[in-house]
Amino acid sequence: MKDKQFLMIPGPTPVPETALQAMAKHPLGHRSKEFSAILKQVFQDLKWLFQTQEDVFIYTASGTGAMEAAVYNLVNPGDKVLSLVIGNFGERWAKIAESRGANVERLSVGWGCAINPKDLKAKLSADKNKEIKFVTLTHNETSTGVTNDLKTLNDIIQEHGALSIVDGITSIGALPFKMDEWGIDVIVSGSQKGFMIPPGLAFLACSKKAWKIYEQCKYPSFYFDFAAYKKNAKKDTTPYTPAVSQIAALSETLKMMKEEGLNNIHTRHAKIAGGLRVAVEAMGLELFVKDKKIRSNVIVAIQPPEGVSVADIRKGLKDDFDIVVADGQGELKGKIFRVGNLGFVCERDMIATIGALEIVLARLGHNVDRGKATAAFIEAVMSN
Amino acid sequence: MKDKQFLMIPGPTPVPETALQAMAKHPLGHRSKEFSAILKQVFQDLKWLFQTQEDVFIYTASGTGAMEAAVYNLVNPGDKVLSLVIGNFGERWAKIAESRGANVERLSVGWGCAINPKDLKAKLSADKNKEIKFVTLTHNETSTGVTNDLKTLNDIIQEHGALSIVDGITSIGALPFKMDEWGIDVIVSGSQKGFMIPPGLAFLACSKKAWKIYEQCKYPSFYFDFAAYKKNAKKDTTPYTPAVSQIAALSETLKMMKEEGLNNIHTRHAKIAGGLRVAVEAMGLELFVKDKKIRSNVIVAIQPPEGVSVADIRKGLKDDFDIVVADGQGELKGKIFRVGNLGFVCERDMIATIGALEIVLARLGHNVDRGKATAAFIEAVMSN
Repeated sequence: MKDKQFLMIPGPTPVPETALQAMAKHPLGHRSKEFSAILKQVFQDLKWLFQTQEDVFIYTASGTGAMEAAVYNLVNPGDKVLSLVIGNFGERWAKIAESRGANVERLSVGWGCAINPKDLKAKLSADKNKEIKFVTLTHNETSTGVTNDLKTLNDIIQEHGALSIVDGITSIGALPFKMDEWGIDVIVSGSQKGFMIPPGLAFLACSKKAWKIYEQCKYPSFYFDFAAYKKNAKKDTTPYTPAVSQIAALSETLKMMKEEGLNNIHTRHAKIAGGLRVAVEAMGLELFVKDKKIRSNVIVAIQPPEGVSVADIRKGLKDDFDIVVADGQGELKGKIFRVGNLGFVCERDMIATIGALEIVLARLGHNVDRGKATAAFIEAVMSN
Repeated sequence: MKDKQFLMIPGPTPVPETALQAMAKHPLGHRSKEFSAILKQVFQDLKWLFQTQEDVFIYTASGTGAMEAAVYNLVNPGDKVLSLVIGNFGERWAKIAESRGANVERLSVGWGCAINPKDLKAKLSADKNKEIKFVTLTHNETSTGVTNDLKTLNDIIQEHGALSIVDGITSIGALPFKMDEWGIDVIVSGSQKGFMIPPGLAFLACSKKAWKIYEQCKYPSFYFDFAAYKKNAKKDTTPYTPAVSQIAALSETLKMMKEEGLNNIHTRHAKIAGGLRVAVEAMGLELFVKDKKIRSNVIVAIQPPEGVSVADIRKGLKDDFDIVVADGQGELKGKIFRVGNLGFVCERDMIATIGALEIVLARLGHNVDRGKATAAFIEAVMSN
């Protein structure tokens, strides 16, 4: 059928009707009382979502814009940065820091793995003169479907005295995250993920420790300048004209998230991704991430069966079922496909996706016990 | 009445229904063929709108983001920049260049004036060693309602050999502009203006001469990096997840603009702003900009009558007629109010605004010949 596309990719993700309706309204003036009232509530709700007392800045930008904001407001050319790289998005931190003229060292692991806390500890212990001022890392690595043990890694970074700069683009609003309790210094995120609205907004919050470093930054970005956003947040506004329609949509999805509750949101994501993994194995396919403890609950990376191409699987799902799943990125292109359950995705959506995948694989000649994977998913969610 | 707000401010501006409907659709995947097809057409139409053969980059950002992009991709710390300042937005260029560590000199005029080409010529002639590498300027200064003679100023900049960096945020799609024919080096714009869509996108195009300077830039911005956007534009995509809903809306408004035609768009803006000025004088009010030749055709700055406050005029229009007009900015706050006719504004809207303004002024005790200003507007548009 036409006009029935469903996104099971790690972003953009599906958007609820109330948010779409908000997008369709005539834009409000960004300096109006009506808009400030919306923004006031949104700022408050974002603090709840990030579990922080700090201000959460709203940038009109892609998530990468907020990553740039984090680096450019804190890092001076020549500063030493340690980048923990477990995939494409971890590498992006390193590249942004390099674009700033930082002295970047990478701690990299094979794709499909997470950072081992012991390796980080060893690396930082070797830094006797405390030259490493910043550690960049990815909470959930979308390119491989791996979630780092952020709390443990951050504890090690804090012990060393460095500043943690964290990509929470595909984790906030989907995976457990507690900025203040965990002592995270800088966290960034993006709108087309757990926030359940279209792309166009990015978010950033930073700790008091980060503010001190900001004060020493020689040339902070103008557009992304922390101080400008903080000053304006206090007045329920933004320094430059924001994407008002997206913020109106966000105010709707934040309401929904508060109604569902943080724990329920996390449980929903864990249950659906867990059920999908069971179903994948019931289909005789292999999960790309071998270590169970680090598998992401928002994106599952799957290896195609022998003799079946990722391109054909994606085409079958798209053409016959209007379901969009993602290819691998970089070196994993054509080697894995990735099914996202990030944000506005419910059990019903995953039942449909697994059923469709069974049909596509059967049509492509893979020997599937028809219905077995769907049954396995149903069983998994019912016994959870 | 409720739910009938109409924006007569210089942005956000009113949005046509087709664009609002596009905003309300489920977002497309940004790497899908469907989205690339939209983007391909949008890129082509933007070249038409900017009157250029160069690529027009689409940034997910406010207009200020594109201003930062222009400066950060070209200017190195220590470079000498001449900023032509005729108001708030001209000053913004200077501040962005300073945030980059540039050596900024300002050529400023009183608010309500334009840059005199002779003054620019004298300033650049005095720069015997050609230390001034960049000149920043504003095509249409929204804070005062003044339009610079961009073509003449740019000719002088080109003669000196400097690079022109131009804010076309409130001019593109409303005032005559020809990037290639005029030989402009860098032009930026924003979506919530002549483009007739909500805020969230910014645009930038640069000349071959600018590309050569870009290659010497030590630390170009990562998020706004020219090369990344150019490389991706060739493949009908963007380097990072763009605001897909806004781009879908833009594809609708660009269609409308092509149907109307560039000349007709410019004539419409000139006719409506010209008619408003006639009406303002018929009401016994004074225009803030005294020099007729530099008055903007997208925003008219008006001085309130003696004894009537800007706040009361704005409140009356808002409360009784759901019409939003802008206050002055910075030193002009409370001294002028500004009525925009930028983008999706037609004669009917201005008739209504002028009629409402007559009633508001009369209620506030200003002696108005009732209907005279509205009649003057009608007369002006009919005789044009």
